[in-house]
Amino acid sequence: MSVTLDSNQWNLVYNVFSFGLISMLACTVYTLVSQSRVLPKYRNALVMSSMVTFIAGYHYFRIFNSFDEASEGMVVNVSGEQGAFNEAYRYVDWLLTVPLLLVEVIAVLALAKEVSKSLIMRLVPASAAMIALGYPGEITSDKNTAILYGVLSTIPFLYILYVLFVELGKSLERQPAGVAETIGRLRLLLIATWGVYPISYILGMNGDPTASSFVGVQVGYTIADVLAKCVFGLTILKIARMKSHAEGMAADH
Amino acid sequence: MSVTLDSNQWNLVYNVFSFGLISMLACTVYTLVSQSRVLPKYRNALVMSSMVTFIAGYHYFRIFNSFDEASEGMVVNVSGEQGAFNEAYRYVDWLLTVPLLLVEVIAVLALAKEVSKSLIMRLVPASAAMIALGYPGEITSDKNTAILYGVLSTIPFLYILYVLFVELGKSLERQPAGVAETIGRLRLLLIATWGVYPISYILGMNGDPTASSFVGVQVGYTIADVLAKCVFGLTILKIARMKSHAEGMAADH
Repeated sequence: MSVTLDSNQWNLVYNVFSFGLISMLACTVYTLVSQSRVLPKYRNALVMSSMVTFIAGYHYFRIFNSFDEASEGMVVNVSGEQGAFNEAYRYVDWLLTVPLLLVEVIAVLALAKEVSKSLIMRLVPASAAMIALGYPGEITSDKNTAILYGVLSTIPFLYILYVLFVELGKSLERQPAGVAETIGRLRLLLIATWGVYPISYILGMNGDPTASSFVGVQVGYTIADVLAKCVFGLTILKIARMKSHAEGMAADH
Repeated sequence: MSVTLDSNQWNLVYNVFSFGLISMLACTVYTLVSQSRVLPKYRNALVMSSMVTFIAGYHYFRIFNSFDEASEGMVVNVSGEQGAFNEAYRYVDWLLTVPLLLVEVIAVLALAKEVSKSLIMRLVPASAAMIALGYPGEITSDKNTAILYGVLSTIPFLYILYVLFVELGKSLERQPAGVAETIGRLRLLLIATWGVYPISYILGMNGDPTASSFVGVQVGYTIADVLAKCVFGLTILKIARMKSHAEGMAADH
Protein backbone atom coordinates (compact mmCIF):
# COMPACT_ATOMS: atom_id res chain seq x y z
CA MET A 1 0.00 0.00 0.00
CA SER A 2 1.39 3.41 -0.95
CA VAL A 3 0.38 7.03 -1.48
CA THR A 4 1.60 9.03 -4.50
CA LEU A 5 2.12 12.71 -3.69
CA ASP A 6 2.90 15.57 -6.07
CA SER A 7 5.94 17.71 -5.31
CA ASN A 8 3.96 20.47 -3.52
CA GLN A 9 2.23 17.90 -1.29
CA TRP A 10 5.44 16.03 -0.57
CA ASN A 11 7.31 19.23 0.32
CA LEU A 12 4.45 20.50 2.46
CA VAL A 13 4.46 17.35 4.61
CA TYR A 14 8.29 17.32 4.77
CA ASN A 15 8.50 20.97 5.84
CA VAL A 16 5.61 20.72 8.29
CA PHE A 17 7.42 17.83 10.04
CA SER A 18 10.61 19.93 10.21
CA PHE A 19 8.58 22.84 11.59
CA GLY A 20 7.09 20.56 14.26
CA LEU A 21 10.52 19.24 15.20
CA ILE A 22 12.23 22.61 15.73
CA SER A 23 9.16 24.12 17.43
CA MET A 24 9.27 21.33 20.01
CA LEU A 25 13.03 21.67 20.57
CA ALA A 26 12.98 25.47 20.88
CA CYS A 27 10.06 25.27 23.31
CA THR A 28 11.94 22.65 25.37
CA VAL A 29 14.96 24.95 25.79
CA TYR A 30 12.77 28.01 26.43
CA THR A 31 10.79 26.43 29.28
CA LEU A 32 13.98 24.89 30.73
CA VAL A 33 15.86 28.20 30.90
CA SER A 34 12.83 30.16 32.12
CA GLN A 35 12.60 28.33 35.45
CA SER A 36 14.12 31.17 37.47
CA ARG A 37 11.27 33.42 36.32
CA VAL A 38 8.71 31.57 38.50
CA LEU A 39 8.59 30.61 42.19
CA PRO A 40 10.19 27.22 43.02
CA LYS A 41 6.80 25.56 43.60
CA TYR A 42 5.84 26.14 39.95
CA ARG A 43 9.11 24.96 38.42
CA ASN A 44 8.05 21.32 38.24
CA ALA A 45 5.17 22.29 35.92
CA LEU A 46 7.71 23.95 33.59
CA VAL A 47 10.02 20.94 33.70
CA MET A 48 7.09 18.70 32.74
CA SER A 49 6.29 21.00 29.86
CA SER A 50 9.95 20.68 28.75
CA MET A 51 9.67 16.89 28.97
CA VAL A 52 6.50 16.91 26.87
CA THR A 53 8.10 18.96 24.08
CA PHE A 54 11.39 17.03 24.37
CA ILE A 55 9.58 13.70 23.88
CA ALA A 56 7.57 15.19 21.03
CA GLY A 57 10.74 16.65 19.45
CA TYR A 58 12.29 13.17 19.49
CA HIS A 59 9.22 11.72 17.79
CA TYR A 60 9.11 14.44 15.14
CA PHE A 61 12.76 13.72 14.39
CA ARG A 62 11.80 10.05 13.88
CA ILE A 63 8.65 10.90 11.90
CA PHE A 64 10.60 13.29 9.63
CA ASN A 65 13.23 10.61 8.89
CA SER A 66 10.60 7.89 8.53
CA PHE A 67 8.71 9.96 5.95
CA ASP A 68 11.88 10.67 3.97
CA GLU A 69 13.06 7.05 4.04
CA ALA A 70 9.61 5.64 3.21
CA SER A 71 9.39 7.90 0.12
CA GLU A 72 10.77 6.90 -3.22
CA GLY A 73 10.22 9.52 -5.89
CA MET A 74 7.45 10.97 -3.71
CA VAL A 75 5.58 7.64 -3.52
CA VAL A 76 5.17 7.04 0.21
CA ASN A 77 5.18 3.44 1.43
CA VAL A 78 2.38 3.10 4.01
CA SER A 79 2.21 -0.71 3.95
CA GLY A 80 2.95 -1.07 7.66
CA GLU A 81 5.95 -3.26 6.88
CA GLN A 82 9.61 -2.57 7.60
CA GLY A 83 10.69 0.64 5.84
CA ALA A 84 7.12 1.98 5.65
CA PHE A 85 6.09 5.35 7.11
CA ASN A 86 5.62 4.63 10.82
CA GLU A 87 2.45 6.31 12.07
CA ALA A 88 2.83 4.50 15.42
CA TYR A 89 5.47 7.02 16.57
CA ARG A 90 2.54 9.33 17.22
CA TYR A 91 0.87 6.83 19.55
CA VAL A 92 4.08 6.23 21.50
CA ASP A 93 4.44 10.00 21.78
CA TRP A 94 0.88 10.53 23.00
CA LEU A 95 1.07 7.63 25.46
CA LEU A 96 3.87 9.53 27.22
CA THR A 97 2.97 13.17 26.59
CA VAL A 98 -0.80 13.26 27.12
CA PRO A 99 -0.68 12.05 30.76
CA LEU A 100 2.26 14.47 31.35
CA LEU A 101 0.28 17.37 29.87
CA LEU A 102 -2.55 16.71 32.29
CA VAL A 103 -0.19 16.44 35.26
CA GLU A 104 1.35 19.74 34.09
CA VAL A 105 -2.03 21.50 34.43
CA ILE A 106 -2.55 20.11 37.94
CA ALA A 107 1.04 21.01 38.95
CA VAL A 108 0.77 24.64 37.90
CA LEU A 109 -2.40 25.07 39.94
CA ALA A 110 -0.56 24.08 43.15
CA LEU A 111 -3.76 22.72 44.70
CA ALA A 112 -3.95 21.05 48.11
CA LYS A 113 -1.93 17.82 48.07
CA GLU A 114 -4.92 15.45 48.41
CA VAL A 115 -6.86 17.25 45.67
CA SER A 116 -3.86 17.11 43.29
CA LYS A 117 -3.27 13.47 44.04
CA SER A 118 -6.91 12.50 43.49
CA LEU A 119 -7.06 14.37 40.15
CA ILE A 120 -3.77 12.87 38.92
CA MET A 121 -4.77 9.32 39.97
CA ARG A 122 -7.81 9.59 37.71
CA LEU A 123 -6.50 11.68 34.79
CA VAL A 124 -3.32 9.68 34.15
CA PRO A 125 -4.90 6.20 33.82
CA ALA A 126 -7.82 7.63 31.84
CA SER A 127 -5.52 9.37 29.34
CA ALA A 128 -3.27 6.30 28.98
CA ALA A 129 -6.39 4.16 28.35
CA MET A 130 -7.62 6.66 25.77
CA ILE A 131 -4.39 6.43 23.74
CA ALA A 132 -3.91 2.68 24.17
CA LEU A 133 -7.49 1.97 23.00
CA GLY A 134 -7.07 4.21 19.95
CA TYR A 135 -4.02 2.34 18.67
CA PRO A 136 -5.64 -1.01 17.66
CA GLY A 137 -8.26 1.00 15.75
CA GLU A 138 -5.59 3.04 13.96
CA ILE A 139 -3.62 0.04 12.67
CA THR A 140 -6.53 -2.20 11.71
CA SER A 141 -7.76 -2.32 8.14
CA ASP A 142 -11.18 -3.56 9.28
CA LYS A 143 -13.69 -0.72 9.56
CA ASN A 144 -15.81 -2.33 12.31
CA THR A 145 -12.74 -2.86 14.49
CA ALA A 146 -11.79 0.78 13.91
CA ILE A 147 -15.27 1.94 14.98
CA LEU A 148 -15.24 -0.33 18.06
CA TYR A 149 -11.89 1.00 19.33
CA GLY A 150 -12.84 4.54 18.38
CA VAL A 151 -15.89 4.29 20.63
CA LEU A 152 -13.95 2.56 23.44
CA SER A 153 -11.29 5.29 23.32
CA THR A 154 -13.96 8.00 23.52
CA ILE A 155 -15.15 6.79 26.95
CA PRO A 156 -11.97 7.79 28.87
CA PHE A 157 -11.83 10.98 26.74
CA LEU A 158 -15.28 12.01 27.97
CA TYR A 159 -14.27 11.13 31.54
CA ILE A 160 -11.20 13.43 31.21
CA LEU A 161 -13.42 16.26 29.99
CA TYR A 162 -15.73 15.68 32.97
CA VAL A 163 -12.80 15.87 35.42
CA LEU A 164 -11.29 18.96 33.78
CA PHE A 165 -14.52 20.91 33.40
CA VAL A 166 -16.62 19.85 36.38
CA GLU A 167 -14.22 18.76 39.12
CA LEU A 168 -11.35 21.10 38.31
CA GLY A 169 -13.81 23.98 37.90
CA LYS A 170 -14.48 23.86 41.67
CA SER A 171 -10.78 24.41 42.44
CA LEU A 172 -10.47 27.43 40.15
CA GLU A 173 -12.49 29.73 42.41
CA ARG A 174 -9.61 30.12 44.84
CA GLN A 175 -7.06 31.07 42.17
CA PRO A 176 -5.71 34.66 41.84
CA ALA A 177 -7.32 37.13 39.41
CA GLY A 178 -6.71 36.35 35.75
CA VAL A 179 -5.60 32.77 36.44
CA ALA A 180 -9.11 31.27 36.21
CA GLU A 181 -9.65 32.87 32.79
CA THR A 182 -6.26 31.70 31.52
CA ILE A 183 -7.02 28.15 32.74
CA GLY A 184 -10.37 28.46 30.96
CA ARG A 185 -8.53 29.34 27.74
CA LEU A 186 -6.10 26.45 28.34
CA ARG A 187 -9.02 23.99 28.56
CA LEU A 188 -10.50 25.40 25.35
CA LEU A 189 -7.10 25.03 23.63
CA LEU A 190 -7.03 21.44 24.83
CA ILE A 191 -10.53 20.66 23.51
CA ALA A 192 -9.90 22.43 20.20
CA THR A 193 -6.60 20.63 19.57
CA TRP A 194 -7.66 17.22 20.89
CA GLY A 195 -10.65 17.49 18.57
CA VAL A 196 -8.24 17.14 15.62
CA TYR A 197 -7.22 13.62 16.65
CA PRO A 198 -10.64 11.93 16.35
CA ILE A 199 -11.25 13.80 13.07
CA SER A 200 -7.98 12.42 11.67
CA TYR A 201 -8.87 8.99 13.07
CA ILE A 202 -12.25 9.01 11.29
CA LEU A 203 -10.62 10.28 8.05
CA GLY A 204 -8.18 7.38 8.27
CA MET A 205 -11.00 4.81 8.60
CA ASN A 206 -12.10 5.12 4.98
CA GLY A 207 -9.81 2.43 3.60
CA ASP A 208 -6.56 3.25 1.81
CA PRO A 209 -5.42 6.85 2.20
CA THR A 210 -5.57 9.17 -0.80
CA ALA A 211 -2.85 11.80 -1.38
CA SER A 212 -5.04 14.58 0.01
CA SER A 213 -6.28 12.62 3.04
CA PHE A 214 -2.67 11.64 3.87
CA VAL A 215 -1.49 15.27 3.62
CA GLY A 216 -4.51 16.54 5.58
CA VAL A 217 -3.98 14.03 8.40
CA GLN A 218 -0.23 14.69 8.73
CA VAL A 219 -0.52 18.49 8.57
CA GLY A 220 -3.52 18.43 10.92
CA TYR A 221 -1.76 16.24 13.50
CA THR A 222 1.37 18.41 13.41
CA ILE A 223 -0.44 21.71 13.87
CA ALA A 224 -2.54 20.15 16.65
CA ASP A 225 0.63 18.87 18.34
CA VAL A 226 2.37 22.27 18.18
CA LEU A 227 -0.71 23.95 19.67
CA ALA A 228 -1.32 21.23 22.28
CA LYS A 229 2.32 21.09 23.41
CA CYS A 230 4.22 24.32 22.61
CA VAL A 231 1.42 26.87 22.89
CA PHE A 232 0.07 24.86 25.83
CA GLY A 233 3.49 24.93 27.54
CA LEU A 234 3.89 28.67 26.99
CA THR A 235 0.43 29.18 28.52
CA ILE A 236 1.52 27.10 31.54
CA LEU A 237 4.57 29.41 31.87
CA LYS A 238 2.26 32.42 31.72
CA ILE A 239 0.01 30.99 34.47
CA ALA A 240 3.06 30.15 36.61
CA ARG A 241 4.28 33.75 36.25
CA MET A 242 0.87 35.21 37.09
CA LYS A 243 0.68 33.06 40.22
CA SER A 244 4.29 33.80 41.20
CA HIS A 245 3.64 37.55 41.00
CA ALA A 246 0.36 37.21 42.91
CA GLU A 247 2.35 35.45 45.63
CA GLY A 248 4.93 38.22 45.95
CA MET A 249 7.63 37.50 43.37
CA ALA A 250 9.02 40.81 42.05
CA ALA A 251 7.15 41.73 38.85
CA ASP A 252 10.40 42.51 37.01
CA HIS A 253 11.51 38.90 37.23
CA MET B 1 15.65 21.57 -13.02
CA SER B 2 19.23 21.94 -11.85
CA VAL B 3 22.04 24.46 -11.49
CA THR B 4 25.60 23.60 -12.55
CA LEU B 5 28.18 25.29 -10.34
CA ASP B 6 31.93 25.43 -10.82
CA SER B 7 34.09 24.26 -7.95
CA ASN B 8 34.69 27.79 -6.59
CA GLN B 9 30.97 28.52 -6.57
CA TRP B 10 30.04 25.18 -5.05
CA ASN B 11 32.63 25.53 -2.27
CA LEU B 12 31.64 29.13 -1.58
CA VAL B 13 28.00 28.16 -0.99
CA TYR B 14 28.99 25.09 1.05
CA ASN B 15 31.34 27.08 3.30
CA VAL B 16 28.97 30.03 3.67
CA PHE B 17 26.28 27.63 4.94
CA SER B 18 28.77 26.18 7.42
CA PHE B 19 29.70 29.73 8.52
CA GLY B 20 26.01 30.52 9.04
CA LEU B 21 25.48 27.34 11.06
CA ILE B 22 28.32 27.86 13.53
CA SER B 23 27.67 31.61 13.85
CA MET B 24 24.11 30.83 14.94
CA LEU B 25 25.16 28.13 17.41
CA ALA B 26 27.96 30.22 18.97
CA CYS B 27 25.61 33.18 19.34
CA THR B 28 23.00 30.91 20.96
CA VAL B 29 25.45 29.78 23.64
CA TYR B 30 26.85 33.30 24.15
CA THR B 31 23.48 34.93 24.80
CA LEU B 32 22.37 32.01 27.00
CA VAL B 33 25.42 32.20 29.30
CA SER B 34 25.39 36.03 29.41
CA GLN B 35 22.07 36.22 31.21
CA SER B 36 23.58 37.01 34.61
CA ARG B 37 25.24 40.12 33.10
CA VAL B 38 21.88 41.92 32.84
CA LEU B 39 19.08 42.64 35.30
CA PRO B 40 16.41 39.88 35.55
CA LYS B 41 13.84 41.96 33.67
CA TYR B 42 16.02 41.95 30.53
CA ARG B 43 16.87 38.25 30.58
CA ASN B 44 13.84 37.16 28.62
CA ALA B 45 14.99 39.32 25.69
CA LEU B 46 18.31 37.44 25.74
CA VAL B 47 16.57 34.06 25.94
CA MET B 48 14.46 34.99 22.91
CA SER B 49 17.62 35.97 21.04
CA SER B 50 19.03 32.53 21.93
CA MET B 51 15.87 30.88 20.62
CA VAL B 52 16.09 32.83 17.35
CA THR B 53 19.70 31.75 16.71
CA PHE B 54 18.97 28.20 17.94
CA ILE B 55 16.11 27.82 15.45
CA ALA B 56 18.25 29.38 12.71
CA GLY B 57 21.18 27.09 13.60
CA TYR B 58 18.88 24.07 13.19
CA HIS B 59 17.79 25.33 9.78
CA TYR B 60 21.36 26.03 8.61
CA PHE B 61 22.26 22.48 9.62
CA ARG B 62 19.36 21.22 7.45
CA ILE B 63 20.18 23.62 4.58
CA PHE B 64 23.85 22.61 4.63
CA ASN B 65 22.95 18.90 4.48
CA SER B 66 20.25 19.50 1.88
CA PHE B 67 22.72 21.36 -0.39
CA ASP B 68 25.28 18.55 -0.09
CA GLU B 69 22.73 15.78 -0.69
CA ALA B 70 21.10 17.61 -3.62
CA SER B 71 24.50 18.04 -5.34
CA GLU B 72 25.95 15.44 -7.66
CA GLY B 73 29.26 16.45 -9.16
CA MET B 74 28.45 20.10 -8.30
CA VAL B 75 25.17 19.94 -10.26
CA VAL B 76 22.55 21.06 -7.72
CA ASN B 77 19.08 19.55 -8.02
CA VAL B 78 16.57 22.41 -7.55
CA SER B 79 13.58 20.58 -9.03
CA GLY B 80 11.48 20.86 -5.88
CA GLU B 81 11.11 17.07 -5.75
CA GLN B 82 12.32 14.67 -3.08
CA GLY B 83 16.10 14.96 -2.77
CA ALA B 84 16.21 18.51 -4.25
CA PHE B 85 17.75 21.47 -2.44
CA ASN B 86 15.02 22.57 -0.02
CA GLU B 87 14.76 26.37 -0.07
CA ALA B 88 11.60 26.14 2.08
CA TYR B 89 13.68 25.62 5.24
CA ARG B 90 14.29 29.36 5.09
CA TYR B 91 10.56 30.11 5.16
CA VAL B 92 9.93 27.77 8.09
CA ASP B 93 12.85 29.49 9.84
CA TRP B 94 11.55 33.00 9.20
CA LEU B 95 8.00 32.06 10.19
CA LEU B 96 9.35 31.28 13.67
CA THR B 97 12.28 33.70 14.03
CA VAL B 98 10.95 36.96 12.56
CA PRO B 99 8.07 37.28 15.05
CA LEU B 100 10.52 36.32 17.85
CA LEU B 101 13.02 39.00 16.73
CA LEU B 102 10.33 41.65 16.97
CA VAL B 103 9.21 40.42 20.41
CA GLU B 104 12.90 40.55 21.45
CA VAL B 105 13.06 44.30 20.62
CA ILE B 106 9.91 45.00 22.61
CA ALA B 107 11.12 42.84 25.53
CA VAL B 108 14.46 44.64 25.86
CA LEU B 109 12.73 48.03 26.04
CA ALA B 110 10.78 46.94 29.16
CA LEU B 111 7.90 49.27 28.28
CA ALA B 112 4.69 49.53 30.29
CA LYS B 113 2.80 46.23 30.12
CA GLU B 114 -0.14 47.52 28.04
CA VAL B 115 2.19 49.26 25.52
CA SER B 116 4.26 46.06 25.11
CA LYS B 117 1.18 43.93 24.72
CA SER B 118 -0.37 46.24 22.11
CA LEU B 119 2.89 46.36 20.06
CA ILE B 120 3.35 42.57 20.21
CA MET B 121 -0.27 41.86 19.30
CA ARG B 122 0.26 43.84 16.08
CA LEU B 123 3.84 42.99 15.16
CA VAL B 124 3.59 39.19 15.57
CA PRO B 125 0.56 38.62 13.27
CA ALA B 126 1.91 41.15 10.73
CA SER B 127 5.30 39.43 10.55
CA ALA B 128 3.76 35.94 10.31
CA ALA B 129 1.50 37.20 7.49
CA MET B 130 4.51 38.73 5.72
CA ILE B 131 6.37 35.39 5.67
CA ALA B 132 3.33 33.22 4.92
CA LEU B 133 2.39 35.42 1.93
CA GLY B 134 5.92 35.30 0.56
CA TYR B 135 6.05 31.49 0.43
CA PRO B 136 3.50 30.81 -2.38
CA GLY B 137 5.35 33.39 -4.47
CA GLU B 138 8.71 31.74 -3.81
CA ILE B 139 7.64 28.24 -4.86
CA THR B 140 5.56 29.19 -7.91
CA SER B 141 7.05 29.09 -11.38
CA ASP B 142 4.48 31.59 -12.67
CA LYS B 143 5.85 35.14 -12.70
CA ASN B 144 2.47 36.87 -12.21
CA THR B 145 1.72 34.76 -9.14
CA ALA B 146 5.19 35.65 -7.79
CA ILE B 147 4.51 39.37 -8.31
CA LEU B 148 1.05 39.12 -6.70
CA TYR B 149 2.36 37.44 -3.53
CA GLY B 150 5.40 39.74 -3.47
CA VAL B 151 3.07 42.76 -3.37
CA LEU B 152 0.74 41.13 -0.80
CA SER B 153 3.70 40.32 1.43
CA THR B 154 4.93 43.93 1.21
CA ILE B 155 1.76 45.27 2.86
CA PRO B 156 2.42 43.74 6.32
CA PHE B 157 6.12 44.64 5.87
CA LEU B 158 5.25 48.33 5.49
CA TYR B 159 2.94 48.09 8.47
CA ILE B 160 5.80 46.66 10.59
CA LEU B 161 8.04 49.56 9.53
CA TYR B 162 5.29 52.01 10.49
CA VAL B 163 4.93 50.43 13.95
CA LEU B 164 8.70 50.30 14.53
CA PHE B 165 9.49 53.82 13.30
CA VAL B 166 6.42 55.86 14.19
CA GLU B 167 4.77 54.15 17.15
CA LEU B 168 7.88 52.76 18.81
CA GLY B 169 9.63 56.12 18.29
CA LYS B 170 7.29 57.69 20.85
CA SER B 171 8.41 55.20 23.51
CA LEU B 172 12.11 55.84 22.94
CA GLU B 173 12.08 59.32 24.50
CA ARG B 174 11.89 57.88 28.00
CA GLN B 175 14.85 55.50 27.52
CA PRO B 176 18.23 56.19 29.22
CA ALA B 177 21.00 58.07 27.36
CA GLY B 178 22.56 56.09 24.53
CA VAL B 179 19.73 53.55 24.38
CA ALA B 180 17.64 55.55 21.89
CA GLU B 181 20.60 55.80 19.47
CA THR B 182 21.37 52.08 19.81
CA ILE B 183 17.72 51.24 19.13
CA GLY B 184 17.95 53.56 16.14
CA ARG B 185 20.93 51.58 14.84
CA LEU B 186 19.07 48.33 15.54
CA ARG B 187 16.18 49.49 13.36
CA LEU B 188 18.59 50.47 10.57
CA LEU B 189 20.23 47.03 10.83
CA LEU B 190 16.78 45.50 10.53
CA ILE B 191 15.86 47.55 7.45
CA ALA B 192 19.25 46.95 5.79
CA THR B 193 19.16 43.18 6.33
CA TRP B 194 15.45 42.70 5.63
CA GLY B 195 16.07 44.58 2.37
CA VAL B 196 18.13 41.58 1.17
CA TYR B 197 15.11 39.26 1.24
CA PRO B 198 12.94 41.10 -1.34
CA ILE B 199 16.04 41.55 -3.56
CA SER B 200 16.66 37.79 -3.50
CA TYR B 201 12.94 37.19 -4.05
CA ILE B 202 12.96 39.40 -7.16
CA LEU B 203 16.19 37.77 -8.42
CA GLY B 204 14.49 34.38 -8.02
CA MET B 205 11.49 35.46 -10.12
CA ASN B 206 13.36 35.42 -13.42
CA GLY B 207 12.68 31.80 -14.29
CA ASP B 208 15.24 29.07 -13.75
CA PRO B 209 18.19 30.11 -11.57
CA THR B 210 21.59 30.56 -13.21
CA ALA B 211 24.76 29.54 -11.37
CA SER B 212 25.56 33.11 -10.39
CA SER B 213 22.00 34.01 -9.33
CA PHE B 214 21.86 30.83 -7.21
CA VAL B 215 25.18 31.66 -5.52
CA GLY B 216 24.19 35.31 -5.06
CA VAL B 217 20.85 34.42 -3.46
CA GLN B 218 22.32 31.81 -1.07
CA VAL B 219 25.29 33.95 0.01
CA GLY B 220 23.06 37.03 0.31
CA TYR B 221 20.45 35.24 2.44
CA THR B 222 23.11 33.79 4.72
CA ILE B 223 24.91 37.09 5.34
CA ALA B 224 21.55 38.80 5.90
CA ASP B 225 20.57 36.06 8.37
CA VAL B 226 23.82 36.37 10.34
CA LEU B 227 23.41 40.16 10.55
CA ALA B 228 19.69 40.02 11.33
CA LYS B 229 20.03 37.34 14.00
CA CYS B 230 23.56 37.21 15.49
CA VAL B 231 24.57 40.89 15.21
CA PHE B 232 21.00 41.81 16.11
CA GLY B 233 21.11 39.57 19.20
CA LEU B 234 24.46 40.98 20.33
CA THR B 235 23.03 44.50 19.95
CA ILE B 236 20.08 43.43 22.12
CA LEU B 237 22.61 42.24 24.73
CA LYS B 238 24.38 45.62 24.53
CA ILE B 239 21.10 47.51 25.03
CA ALA B 240 20.16 45.25 27.96
CA ARG B 241 23.54 45.99 29.58
CA MET B 242 23.24 49.76 29.05
CA LYS B 243 19.78 49.72 30.62
CA SER B 244 20.89 47.46 33.48
CA HIS B 245 23.75 49.86 34.32
CA ALA B 246 21.47 52.89 34.05
CA GLU B 247 19.21 51.17 36.60
CA GLY B 248 21.99 50.55 39.12
CA MET B 249 23.61 47.25 38.19
CA ALA B 250 27.36 47.42 38.97
CA ALA B 251 29.22 48.42 35.80
CA ASP B 252 31.80 45.66 36.25
CA HIS B 253 29.12 43.00 35.77
